[in-house]
Amino acid sequence: MVAPLKVGIAGLGTVGAEVVRLIETQARVLAGRSGRGIRVVAVTARSKAKKRSIDLRGVEWVKDPLALATHPGIDCFVELMGGAGDPALSAVEAALNAGKSVVTANKALLAKHGLKLAKAAEKHGGALNYEAAVGAAIPVIKTLREGLAGTGINRVYGILNGTCNYILTRMEQEGLSFAECLTDAQRLGYAEANPSFDVDGHDTAQKLAILASLAFGTKVAQGAVYVEGISSIAPEDLRAADELGYRLKLLGVAVRTAKGIEQRVHPTMVPKSSSIAQVMGVTNAVTIDGEGIPPITLVGPGAGGAATASAVVADIADVARGIRAHPFGRPIAQLRDTKKAPMERHEGGYYIRLLARDFPGTAAAIATRLAEQKISIESIVQRHPNGGAASPDGKAVPVPVILITYATHEDAVRRALAAVQKDKVISGRPQVIRIEKN
Amino acid sequence: MVAPLKVGIAGLGTVGAEVVRLIETQARVLAGRSGRGIRVVAVTARSKAKKRSIDLRGVEWVKDPLALATHPGIDCFVELMGGAGDPALSAVEAALNAGKSVVTANKALLAKHGLKLAKAAEKHGGALNYEAAVGAAIPVIKTLREGLAGTGINRVYGILNGTCNYILTRMEQEGLSFAECLTDAQRLGYAEANPSFDVDGHDTAQKLAILASLAFGTKVAQGAVYVEGISSIAPEDLRAADELGYRLKLLGVAVRTAKGIEQRVHPTMVPKSSSIAQVMGVTNAVTIDGEGIPPITLVGPGAGGAATASAVVADIADVARGIRAHPFGRPIAQLRDTKKAPMERHEGGYYIRLLARDFPGTAAAIATRLAEQKISIESIVQRHPNGGAASPDGKAVPVPVILITYATHEDAVRRALAAVQKDKVISGRPQVIRIEKN
Repeated sequence: MVAPLKVGIAGLGTVGAEVVRLIETQARVLAGRSGRGIRVVAVTARSKAKKRSIDLRGVEWVKDPLALATHPGIDCFVELMGGAGDPALSAVEAALNAGKSVVTANKALLAKHGLKLAKAAEKHGGALNYEAAVGAAIPVIKTLREGLAGTGINRVYGILNGTCNYILTRMEQEGLSFAECLTDAQRLGYAEANPSFDVDGHDTAQKLAILASLAFGTKVAQGAVYVEGISSIAPEDLRAADELGYRLKLLGVAVRTAKGIEQRVHPTMVPKSSSIAQVMGVTNAVTIDGEGIPPITLVGPGAGGAATASAVVADIADVARGIRAHPFGRPIAQLRDTKKAPMERHEGGYYIRLLARDFPGTAAAIATRLAEQKISIESIVQRHPNGGAASPDGKAVPVPVILITYATHEDAVRRALAAVQKDKVISGRPQVIRIEKN
Repeated sequence: MVAPLKVGIAGLGTVGAEVVRLIETQARVLAGRSGRGIRVVAVTARSKAKKRSIDLRGVEWVKDPLALATHPGIDCFVELMGGAGDPALSAVEAALNAGKSVVTANKALLAKHGLKLAKAAEKHGGALNYEAAVGAAIPVIKTLREGLAGTGINRVYGILNGTCNYILTRMEQEGLSFAECLTDAQRLGYAEANPSFDVDGHDTAQKLAILASLAFGTKVAQGAVYVEGISSIAPEDLRAADELGYRLKLLGVAVRTAKGIEQRVHPTMVPKSSSIAQVMGVTNAVTIDGEGIPPITLVGPGAGGAATASAVVADIADVARGIRAHPFGRPIAQLRDTKKAPMERHEGGYYIRLLARDFPGTAAAIATRLAEQKISIESIVQRHPNGGAASPDGKAVPVPVILITYATHEDAVRRALAAVQKDKVISGRPQVIRIEKN
């Protein structure tokens, strides 16, 4: 019998405590699956005094993460502190440089320093496993890194942030505003007091950068992701989406184009019939388009202590079994540089919502401006708020006009709408939302 | 650099040819991911003369599967002939006994002889990988065997047969009969000339037996699966399901109960809001309920040359990387015996459709009979085909009555319906469909 794998855990919050509990309660199954025992031998956390539900008798308490990371008594360092900087960064680096394997749930660390850490893992022979960093227990890292090892990938996209999907789901189902839903999400603990990281798309961007690297063999680079959040979305957009056969989701999309790999996060119209459109509430989902095969969609909890711990323990079991995958699926030397794709060259369909000051004139003006940019219109919907009559005070009432375009270039859309605004036939700014076909 | 993995392929149909093509075109990526090259060095198939689109120059043609399986020049035997018996069985056994690794897409072989083959793999140290056997490119085997290594599983269920889901989808969407949809499925190549293996649930049962073993650590045993097909399903059932908030799917369900592991395949009502209910056409899906975590659902193509080949090549890449998982996730010695769960002890909700001869009297009779068995009714729907009037010839027209029960035991339902039939208040046999909650 091989000696048990000796694990050190830094961070004993909900996830860390659950990892300790799972390793204890599932010991026999884990040993069977891994061919050797798994034992938590040392831990560290901010407060030693804090009351915890787990039994840490016989487990060494180490004073700080760096000391734990380089502890001669551990084989595998489990980083559950979070944050892209120290102490997580220096501890993970130190563990890898000491030839230890690392398991982490830290998407920010991977998105910002993944390449450097992967180099250290490759050089010293340790594993760097991070299934929990994207989609918690949804096995998307394993699927991209191992399950589709021999299949070229054309696109990977998904709902990677539960907070945003919760807000958009409630806006859609109850006709509420973004602000109302955000407040509720905060009250229920689905959104932070400072919600920007989630609702402005940065959390999704970090996860997408990791998926893109695995899918396309590019160097992970959060800076290469175009990011747009959901705060400008109005209930009207969700209503219109529904009528036109779409649902509105905050998607992270990484796609192979003729001009390179495009990585982008933005509110997106997806066909109602797509798997991704069915995903409601805090649930996450990732769709992978492999060459020549229909899409594969993985759906499940994207957060939560138990779901995250489940992925962390599976990663530890892989270390125990001796599995050493390249952290980003390929040797570092094979990873290509990543450039930020210019969004003005993005090709796709668009949803455009305008407030026309006077419908007949505006329709003509818009049609002309779009035609000038060679944009074809798939459908146009306009609604007279009060049956087309002028308002009681005699003034013309602005009329919402919604357009769906066929695939075009983003710069063409921008130019056309700039011209429409110059024509002064609309009120306010146009709402523009990209469409992603399945 | 490690020597390349030398692969021998038995069976050069659509899947086999695509495997050869992928190994060739993806050679660089595969070598990067696996840390060594992968080379097809020998093949065998029924006809050497057959025209194929692949280039087999430099590849040795071996006269039969058994000779290939034990060929001293190969490390990994890829079995793509199919069938639970010979030549697949003896060839796979011979390869494993020779210490070689085996990759197969053969669900029938695994369901019938998986335990014996896993023993041979365990004894001689080779891998036995079969991702393609269930859900083709959907990474369900890897997810159960590795991704959820540390998580207890309560239930695994899914749509595992594209033919049945195609038929049920068309019946639902177009109101067609089973026979009409089957004929269409045969014309389109989705169903065999002899459709029994698919529509009677046996294909699903083989796949379920494999998933149950991985999920629950039981010995794979197709005979332990209760099986019921879809040929008795009528368009009325799909219509009623829709009205009552359900969709009708042929599910394979393996679930941990107080009385052991229940494995069953049958037409099933699933709530419309569940992920599995959204899966239409030939697409497959598997949902895994892990302890303490929300369900994980994997959706994708369950068949097709490219999708199957994608999984086969990923399995080969795992062999090349030196990954050796226990074929059923645990050492053979830890696998428990499997018993066929008695369906009369099954607990759950039921959908019951009856044709009442005379509604008021029948309703009372049915209510009495159900009450006698302590079955509670969640909802009851009855429709008078012509507004409740007698038919033009003066006779009472049978009225369809649909009941949804709360959770109860199957033997209670059977006893109650036997009593109702004895009361002679209904025409024909009652339709009974189990409900699976998410």
